[in-house]
Amino acid sequence: MLKVCVLGATGLVGQRFIQCLWGHPWFRLTGVLASERSAGKRYGEVGKWCLDREMPPAVRRMKVGKVGDLEVDADVVFSALPADVAREVEPRYAAAGYTVCSNASAYRMEEDVPLLIPEVNPDHLGLLEAQRKRRRWKGALITNPNCTTVFLAMALAPLRPFGIEEVAVSTMQALSGAGYGGVPGMAIADNVLPYIGKEEEKVESEPRKILGTLRNGRVQPAGFDIRASCHRVPVIDGHTESILVRLSGKPSLDRVRRAWESFESIGTPTAPERPIVVRDEMDRPQPRMDRDAGRGMTVSVGRVARKGPWLRLLALGHNTIRGAAGASVLNAELMVNQGYLKR
Amino acid sequence: MLKVCVLGATGLVGQRFIQCLWGHPWFRLTGVLASERSAGKRYGEVGKWCLDREMPPAVRRMKVGKVGDLEVDADVVFSALPADVAREVEPRYAAAGYTVCSNASAYRMEEDVPLLIPEVNPDHLGLLEAQRKRRRWKGALITNPNCTTVFLAMALAPLRPFGIEEVAVSTMQALSGAGYGGVPGMAIADNVLPYIGKEEEKVESEPRKILGTLRNGRVQPAGFDIRASCHRVPVIDGHTESILVRLSGKPSLDRVRRAWESFESIGTPTAPERPIVVRDEMDRPQPRMDRDAGRGMTVSVGRVARKGPWLRLLALGHNTIRGAAGASVLNAELMVNQGYLKR
Amino acid sequence: MLKVCVLGATGLVGQRFIQCLWGHPWFRLTGVLASERSAGKRYGEVGKWCLDREMPPAVRRMKVGKVGDLEVDADVVFSALPADVAREVEPRYAAAGYTVCSNASAYRMEEDVPLLIPEVNPDHLGLLEAQRKRRRWKGALITNPNCTTVFLAMALAPLRPFGIEEVAVSTMQALSGAGYGGVPGMAIADNVLPYIGKEEEKVESEPRKILGTLRNGRVQPAGFDIRASCHRVPVIDGHTESILVRLSGKPSLDRVRRAWESFESIGTPTAPERPIVVRDEMDRPQPRMDRDAGRGMTVSVGRVARKGPWLRLLALGHNTIRGAAGASVLNAELMVNQGYLKR
Amino acid sequence: MLKVCVLGATGLVGQRFIQCLWGHPWFRLTGVLASERSAGKRYGEVGKWCLDREMPPAVRRMKVGKVGDLEVDADVVFSALPADVAREVEPRYAAAGYTVCSNASAYRMEEDVPLLIPEVNPDHLGLLEAQRKRRRWKGALITNPNCTTVFLAMALAPLRPFGIEEVAVSTMQALSGAGYGGVPGMAIADNVLPYIGKEEEKVESEPRKILGTLRNGRVQPAGFDIRASCHRVPVIDGHTESILVRLSGKPSLDRVRRAWESFESIGTPTAPERPIVVRDEMDRPQPRMDRDAGRGMTVSVGRVARKGPWLRLLALGHNTIRGAAGASVLNAELMVNQGYLKR
Repeated sequence: MLKVCVLGATGLVGQRFIQCLWGHPWFRLTGVLASERSAGKRYGEVGKWCLDREMPPAVRRMKVGKVGDLEVDADVVFSALPADVAREVEPRYAAAGYTVCSNASAYRMEEDVPLLIPEVNPDHLGLLEAQRKRRRWKGALITNPNCTTVFLAMALAPLRPFGIEEVAVSTMQALSGAGYGGVPGMAIADNVLPYIGKEEEKVESEPRKILGTLRNGRVQPAGFDIRASCHRVPVIDGHTESILVRLSGKPSLDRVRRAWESFESIGTPTAPERPIVVRDEMDRPQPRMDRDAGRGMTVSVGRVARKGPWLRLLALGHNTIRGAAGASVLNAELMVNQGYLKR
Repeated sequence: MLKVCVLGATGLVGQRFIQCLWGHPWFRLTGVLASERSAGKRYGEVGKWCLDREMPPAVRRMKVGKVGDLEVDADVVFSALPADVAREVEPRYAAAGYTVCSNASAYRMEEDVPLLIPEVNPDHLGLLEAQRKRRRWKGALITNPNCTTVFLAMALAPLRPFGIEEVAVSTMQALSGAGYGGVPGMAIADNVLPYIGKEEEKVESEPRKILGTLRNGRVQPAGFDIRASCHRVPVIDGHTESILVRLSGKPSLDRVRRAWESFESIGTPTAPERPIVVRDEMDRPQPRMDRDAGRGMTVSVGRVARKGPWLRLLALGHNTIRGAAGASVLNAELMVNQGYLKR
Repeated sequence: MLKVCVLGATGLVGQRFIQCLWGHPWFRLTGVLASERSAGKRYGEVGKWCLDREMPPAVRRMKVGKVGDLEVDADVVFSALPADVAREVEPRYAAAGYTVCSNASAYRMEEDVPLLIPEVNPDHLGLLEAQRKRRRWKGALITNPNCTTVFLAMALAPLRPFGIEEVAVSTMQALSGAGYGGVPGMAIADNVLPYIGKEEEKVESEPRKILGTLRNGRVQPAGFDIRASCHRVPVIDGHTESILVRLSGKPSLDRVRRAWESFESIGTPTAPERPIVVRDEMDRPQPRMDRDAGRGMTVSVGRVARKGPWLRLLALGHNTIRGAAGASVLNAELMVNQGYLKR
Repeated sequence: MLKVCVLGATGLVGQRFIQCLWGHPWFRLTGVLASERSAGKRYGEVGKWCLDREMPPAVRRMKVGKVGDLEVDADVVFSALPADVAREVEPRYAAAGYTVCSNASAYRMEEDVPLLIPEVNPDHLGLLEAQRKRRRWKGALITNPNCTTVFLAMALAPLRPFGIEEVAVSTMQALSGAGYGGVPGMAIADNVLPYIGKEEEKVESEPRKILGTLRNGRVQPAGFDIRASCHRVPVIDGHTESILVRLSGKPSLDRVRRAWESFESIGTPTAPERPIVVRDEMDRPQPRMDRDAGRGMTVSVGRVARKGPWLRLLALGHNTIRGAAGASVLNAELMVNQGYLKR
């Protein structure tokens, strides 16, 4: 078993990390780290457990370490840190020899940092060679995308053979994306919040890196533009994305559907059997019905239609599982699979 | 005072008609008509009053007439009927000499029926001449658009000088758009419903007629395509529309903003002082904060930005006031203003 | 395996029956029956599946039978019928030799019909002797209580040794209690509905029968009064009940807690390991966090406090599992356990 | 006009104070004070306006003063401060000669501080004499009750002639009671929170003081006990209270109804024409339909029934208007009416 620990373990995504890692057949959770305020206490005494399933009792008794403490009993460090803390802390763990799998946005767009979706661009792990050379780290840093990006990039990936020319996406995002206390109940009840800080910038840039081509140790970004409008709706978990894709080719809807359905699992413990499921019902996907597909790791696509030169579709995924903690764990599994991490 | 009555007075839009007409300085509500089930009873005894403000006591005591009864004491007949009933009944009222102002979709796209937004295409009332000739009706039939269309067409109208080439819209629509019992609480709690029956078709066609040009007694539709994706969110009233407009011109955002802000009121009792308000706050418009602007008759625009060749904006309006009953009442006021109806 | 079928299989509780029965180690689902409208079609084609987990594919293909058809291939008939239909139909199945386990209210208060909570009054199965004599049925009819009653009666049962003198209960009930389309989204968003038809009557009478004493073939109702106020809140599943119990004894809170915690499981497949769990956190139980405890079969109790001569507590349970379909299945398991049904 | 200012003007209740005072015919808002963080800025630049109606433009430009600054241009100081700050600051304003009308809980239960509901216990203003003697303040301090208390005490007051012996109340309280950011959207969506800090203690004690008798300069508390259970539900504004009252007398429900309906207005600008309205519909009062009755100052009572020796009723009011800011403003109007304040 590989030993792993979680940085930022008390927040909402940190809790999802614990849920994804507890009982994992390859990884053993050996440490939970948080800010000074929580360090030294038992995990069960700090923060507020927000998930519907109970906290694993053994985790309840774990002593919380302090983020920044580099003496951790782990091979892999999962990071659920806020971007500003991540920027400062993650390189120190990588330098000290740990493999850092980060959900933070701080280093996603750095040119020598892989921004990974295992089913989509596993070859981008190749950037680690450049990273090691340039940074002289003993360990490594890999990242997973922003939640909204994950579902968009996964829905787009199988369409690459048809020539993606332009993308427009309008999102209806869940409350959990802002963290447990991020959106007051009074703000969102009977309401839509038509703005999410720094979200559109990420959604417009990250997929181009993910869908880009690794060549000579660099990623050449994909050559299409993305127009994103991001909105918060009164939904607990599950982001819904209304997407238009302009394609140079004119594939039949059947061929498009087959492209999604034949998208393959990487077959690791957290990987869903079917990364993408296409729903044919007129009124699917819906967050409450579809967010837990594939234990939160499957992206559901639906409402596929032609609109002139555009292909219209909906993509939906669980934002704190496939869009955050689960994404990071899957990245680590990919590294094991490809020999970057030894069990 | 002009005498008016309401067809389909017991449903949600019918109730909004009563709210818009009660105490109106030009119109006097003389009749409320509904289906056979309710006819003959007092209005206060039938259906369920769904609006937050109380039912006017005098209306409570009005006797409900039967839709289809052509002997009504009225000059204008407002229709809140479902499309299938409207298709059968409205022509009979128009033939009998009444001016029918309809919120139903049945005749909106007929070539001799005006589909009106008074601030946008008042000249389309000119179609009535052709209508009278062709149908040999003593009265007339005019319509207002689908709720989602209203806000989109109003946001687009001031942009016409900049050359509209293509439009994409993704909506987050309120529950009241489906009628009082239209969406079960269990279906929409913690959820998004990504499909609204027949909605996208209307949104993709109606604005082109409204923004079209009246020439030789016919409307030449506007020459751009619309791609619509319509979704239901857990909001009581107020549709939010995330819009992309591709313009041939390259107006500055300031010029665009001025175009919206200078859009003029028609100055009648139901007309808002400012048909369009532009919000500069990053997180506006929001349904709960902005749906009641201008007593529900103002459309709020916000989040204006350039996205490559596209102009991105949000438009929000009250779907059962500016998007339904209020729209129809405003149409009638326009007819008074232009001499089609005599007080 | 005992063969079982479900009457009223297409509604919300019918779907929960299917979920509880599919894969059951003792029962095999052989039939799904519904009204004339659905009979003859495949189950997957009728009604609307409302549960978050997918419909079992094999059920999707089952042919829907017609309620009232007495030729069913089953030993046990579970009934999710509305009360008026149940009143007419259930006796016919019982007469024809089937064991009817009903969730309907129609016969709950009949003096020869057991109203059962297996952990509370299993001995009330003894009423079946009187039932057989009086009704001359070849089969039998047993019932489970109203959802709100179940959680109240379970919370009260372990308190009997302390002398229950009076009970007051104020409920906050979930939408699913009214069936899928029972509460319009517009009615309940940002709202409380302070009335639930016929609910208070049931809650005030049923627990007295359940907690009553079987003597000489009759149930002597428990000797305390219940004052119930029932309200609907915007929650999907899970009824919360705020309860005051006046006790003649003065047990310490610790003794009360132990009484609940020592309440025993009947150890059958659907029975939860712990029928009652006491939560010590100030802010528990909560519907979203606790409704699924014990796969929806555990009742969570909390906020235990003395208020003068009253004991105050909260009780919470899953209304369509422990409060309906699961309750009925547990009743059938009890009958197997006690030899009333032979596998 | 009397000059007034608001302490704690940027919070949710502070905003309601501004809304209640802006355009008031007797009072002129001359100052808005807040914590150090906001002091010195324009009101429109600090905090987040949370009310559905827009901020008055003139208020937007007012300069925010610092709480604790005793040089304010005002006769009356309204306090929306948190309890701990109020405890320290309010006496200093009272000592300096201001009349402090406080919504804070800090001094409500002090024996020489009036805890007022103008329609219920206006004579308790008589405590001010003792207050002046004991505290040697040049000004005065009066308080209004906790929101939940207000509606309970108002519903109980007209029942005093029938002999109140015991009261049980179970509440369903709105989000705004916890302040704008007080309840995370994720915590309350599809949920009930069965605990509100320090609420039950207030509800069990305050009404006894309010309904007590002023004798020899002291309030003798009312002689009945109250058992309170307080819960938070997903409602924006409006607390619903399910109440049981045990009466020594046996008034008919008609007499009870007349007692509530004949409860008289004090006739000042903020006073509602009818302080209590009795709803006869089975499903009223509801927060969304009834919270704004009497511009948020009327308490709605309904579901009146006998339950054995108990009278059962529901009481509902707007928690941040009649339950907070409006209550305080009404108190000030009472003082004007009774000559304690001179215009």
